[in-house]
Amino acid sequence: MHLHHHPFCPHSRFVRLLLAEYGIEPELVEVRVWERKPEFLTLNPAGETPVMVEQQAPSVPGASIIAEYLDETRGLALADRRLLPEDPAGRVEVRRLVAWFHDKLFLESTEHLVRERIYKRYMKSDQGGGPPDAQALRAARSNLRYHLKYIGWLAKGRNWLAGERMSHADLAAAAHLSVADYLGDVPLSGPAVRENPPLPRAGEGWGGGILLPSPPCRPS
Amino acid sequence: MHLHHHPFCPHSRFVRLLLAEYGIEPELVEVRVWERKPEFLTLNPAGETPVMVEQQAPSVPGASIIAEYLDETRGLALADRRLLPEDPAGRVEVRRLVAWFHDKLFLESTEHLVRERIYKRYMKSDQGGGPPDAQALRAARSNLRYHLKYIGWLAKGRNWLAGERMSHADLAAAAHLSVADYLGDVPLSGPAVRENPPLPRAGEGWGGGILLPSPPCRPS
Repeated sequence: MHLHHHPFCPHSRFVRLLLAEYGIEPELVEVRVWERKPEFLTLNPAGETPVMVEQQAPSVPGASIIAEYLDETRGLALADRRLLPEDPAGRVEVRRLVAWFHDKLFLESTEHLVRERIYKRYMKSDQGGGPPDAQALRAARSNLRYHLKYIGWLAKGRNWLAGERMSHADLAAAAHLSVADYLGDVPLSGPAVRENPPLPRAGEGWGGGILLPSPPCRPS
Repeated sequence: MHLHHHPFCPHSRFVRLLLAEYGIEPELVEVRVWERKPEFLTLNPAGETPVMVEQQAPSVPGASIIAEYLDETRGLALADRRLLPEDPAGRVEVRRLVAWFHDKLFLESTEHLVRERIYKRYMKSDQGGGPPDAQALRAARSNLRYHLKYIGWLAKGRNWLAGERMSHADLAAAAHLSVADYLGDVPLSGPAVRENPPLPRAGEGWGGGILLPSPPCRPS
């Protein structure tokens, strides 16, 4: 299996975490989406990472769609470690939070952090490259604090963000926080935040606070 | 069942079309998201329409999440009119296009059309109200033409946008195009566009062109 990704794209990191839960080690193909290469646009006309490609199967574009596809094709094999609950109400809450992190947190914060701090270094000036925009970074950091409070609030009432079991929601939150953390933009203090091993493991959970990668690590 | 919606929100219109396919007539509750009323934020912390609320069930926020929930709880009853295919590859293509319309087309076009032409009329000045921004409307119309070409290209090779059966993808495209059409922003000429009855019906499909609501109708 090939995963077309970027090391700092939070959606790509989510899928790398997800594949690790399934015990799948993908061959990684780094994509610089701003180059808009035709062979990548054929895999995903939306031009975004990640895209998963298996032999003799259609390419699967987009973090949430990959998560649903893996659950449908391999979810049962995870048994009580399955990452999407089986009851419709539980699935609603997992999907609500996945959309919260992948869409809202991304648009309001991590998209800007990654673009300003990483992507723009590699872009040519006609692709939008250049020094980071300080105002965009300030807004992204401010929005991130708001999201951290929400995660802290969720983690106070639940062991895992969407309920009693680790789910796609935890991996999505961890992916975005880990990228922000690596870029130095997560405020590592405050009552709702504590340091911890890289990811919550089954049976542990977020433990009443926000669980951050520690020490700040290069996104896997 | 209650549907918290806005008449001109394309995601809300998608869910109204979807509920009609299931034969469900919801009680409609109009929400003006820019007012950020606490009782609505309790239903959906993301503060966005639509939200579906059934008695003794959790609220279901967001167009795509509602679509998945309805498929899981009532999809089998639709038999060969089921709106999400049963094979994983078919589901990937439906979800890819749903995300394309609800996320990409929305962010690039219909969000701006609806905000500039409708929402801003009702917003107070401190909520962002005022006259439409001509530049935003020009960009939204230009982006819409690009999306119309893509829909036209899909419709040339397939009877329905995601394959051989009507699916969530057709309803998503129809919802966004219908709102743009009502607002007068769909170019109603050109080789890929033709007029037709309000929505493709089972067995008909998009028929080699873009099927538009005709005459321009008030979003249901």
